[in-house]
Amino acid sequence: MAIGFKITKEDGQSRARLGLLHTSHGTVQTPIFMPVGTQATVKTMTPDEVCSCGGELILSNTYHLYLRPGHELVAEAGGLHNFMRWDAPILTDSGGFQVFSLGPLRKITDQGVTFRSHIDGSEHFFSPEKSMEIQMALGADIVMAFDECIPYPCSYEQTKDAMKRTTSWAVRCRTRHNREDQALFGIIQGGMFRDLRLQSVAELTTLDFSGYGIGGLSVGEPKPMMYEVLDYLVPAMPKEKPRYLMGVGSPDCLLEGVYRGVDMFDCVLPTRIARNGTVFTKEGKLVVRNAEYARDFRPLDPECDCYTCRNFSRAYIRHLIKANEVLGIRLTTLHNLRFVLKLMQNIRAAIVGDYFVEYKDEFLRRFKLD
Amino acid sequence: MAIGFKITKEDGQSRARLGLLHTSHGTVQTPIFMPVGTQATVKTMTPDEVCSCGGELILSNTYHLYLRPGHELVAEAGGLHNFMRWDAPILTDSGGFQVFSLGPLRKITDQGVTFRSHIDGSEHFFSPEKSMEIQMALGADIVMAFDECIPYPCSYEQTKDAMKRTTSWAVRCRTRHNREDQALFGIIQGGMFRDLRLQSVAELTTLDFSGYGIGGLSVGEPKPMMYEVLDYLVPAMPKEKPRYLMGVGSPDCLLEGVYRGVDMFDCVLPTRIARNGTVFTKEGKLVVRNAEYARDFRPLDPECDCYTCRNFSRAYIRHLIKANEVLGIRLTTLHNLRFVLKLMQNIRAAIVGDYFVEYKDEFLRRFKLD
Repeated sequence: MAIGFKITKEDGQSRARLGLLHTSHGTVQTPIFMPVGTQATVKTMTPDEVCSCGGELILSNTYHLYLRPGHELVAEAGGLHNFMRWDAPILTDSGGFQVFSLGPLRKITDQGVTFRSHIDGSEHFFSPEKSMEIQMALGADIVMAFDECIPYPCSYEQTKDAMKRTTSWAVRCRTRHNREDQALFGIIQGGMFRDLRLQSVAELTTLDFSGYGIGGLSVGEPKPMMYEVLDYLVPAMPKEKPRYLMGVGSPDCLLEGVYRGVDMFDCVLPTRIARNGTVFTKEGKLVVRNAEYARDFRPLDPECDCYTCRNFSRAYIRHLIKANEVLGIRLTTLHNLRFVLKLMQNIRAAIVGDYFVEYKDEFLRRFKLD
Repeated sequence: MAIGFKITKEDGQSRARLGLLHTSHGTVQTPIFMPVGTQATVKTMTPDEVCSCGGELILSNTYHLYLRPGHELVAEAGGLHNFMRWDAPILTDSGGFQVFSLGPLRKITDQGVTFRSHIDGSEHFFSPEKSMEIQMALGADIVMAFDECIPYPCSYEQTKDAMKRTTSWAVRCRTRHNREDQALFGIIQGGMFRDLRLQSVAELTTLDFSGYGIGGLSVGEPKPMMYEVLDYLVPAMPKEKPRYLMGVGSPDCLLEGVYRGVDMFDCVLPTRIARNGTVFTKEGKLVVRNAEYARDFRPLDPECDCYTCRNFSRAYIRHLIKANEVLGIRLTTLHNLRFVLKLMQNIRAAIVGDYFVEYKDEFLRRFKLD
């Protein structure tokens, strides 16, 4: 087995749990948030800075790296770890979510998906086998099965077809994947339908993946609907395998996900809103590019320990962002990553200390939602 | 006197000299290259990174900071050092070069210059007095007199008028400037005309500035013409005061300037070409965004000790730049700054070791010019 997963503690008041995830590039603690490095870089950051924020496991994108610079080039460079100088664990997604997001640019059959590159319009074909080949060339520690993603909302029939296709593609991924230092995760689909979700998890579980992604959530549905799916889905998932809620990264959703038994998360949200001049604070989001911060000489979040907050004022960061200076989005990105990764550290400490539910309630009382 | 300047060694084979420049924010060695932080940030870099490249004294722009975020705001923040968290010395230019570069957007009289903002078209007025007020509010260690800059080429009459106006403006700057922790430098004009240059330096010297900038060079004239001006101008400048060749920063011009007795330089060139995917190597410029480097897994310059070259390949950096990733231009900027600042360190060591002319010849033999 390319990875090992060991649950080290279960919370008494919720489904939250602590775990150790052993990979070919080291061991990380769960619950964990994975910063996203779409194009072999966490946008604006060096690998050292991601580390300094507490990043231990990052996600990179199969679709983007396949198109540019190409997976063969990455393999020639000695694999993704060596290419981007990230010596800790990496997870690659399957490319599924990206190609399905292309909309009219793609065509789906049982065989796979034909799509056009968003860069130059050239035509390409992804199948479960192709996704495995690319991910094996990239060489991440954890790779994801190629699944069919559906929009929200979506009819029962369409959701069912996509779920069944996802299962048959999962079988083909399992067959094609043969790199022993990589762990392969299956992805559970089934939209917002309880019976389809439970059927998906039952079918995938028979394939005995190293872990299970929960796909098709955080795609535009109301948050209570996502929590409801987690409430019935997670207990049906194998207890001894890591559970990965894909595309989730707002502070409140991280807390609610851990509460419901999720071990892994990834999301572009913290870094994307940072580039737009929005940062997290203990009180909620703060749009530092707004005029009200022009003469505010306090740090972004007075309680934060990050490099940005130890050195720079809201006024200075606002100036940089208004003046289109790269340092502005570097500083906000670094802060937001630290905020989310520190939250995960606090969550793990709270589970250790048996005060997770209190911590969650306290955090959410203070953190204003949009 | 807000600064002290002491020549610690003179080269036996050229006009090169070593010096110590004492400022309100510490002492630096000359000859020195000043990275440019136009908008209160050296583009893409943190202050720590500029330091790590060997940056000791940076330049920032009066025109840009006056327009955005405004000098009063910077003063409220405790001055430029505190605003941008740069605790070492800073020099601000006078704003002259920028407002004269605006072309049709500005109108010059003896009183000053009326111009329109490049940001929003609003009308503003700079005079010698106004430039001093802004620079005193910004609080740099060294400030520059407000001069009239001319294009290249330029007629004798126009050059003479601008030179004379520069002298009368220098008198007004000297009168208005009264911040004791700041040093005020005059700026020598006179274009490519020997008699005007010598007249300019003679007039300005009577005002006893703390140092002298050489303006109006590196404005498009052939390099031999710039060297010729330096050959007759520098010996006419006060020996005991720092000599600052404004806007010069290519490796060959730095060597030739030091050879001719210049102590200080600044230029956007190293950081600007970096953002365009061009880097310095010991062999000359290298356009890392070119296709030939797609599979080149060597560092930008195998002899360089910078963070970029210790960690990343040309192939990776090219990928980042092609994919418009901020990390790409961060890595090239860091490398180019380190290259130029290391060159200055080597120049100072060569003067100490009595091998400056050999070092210069050896460097220029290898470094291919465009």
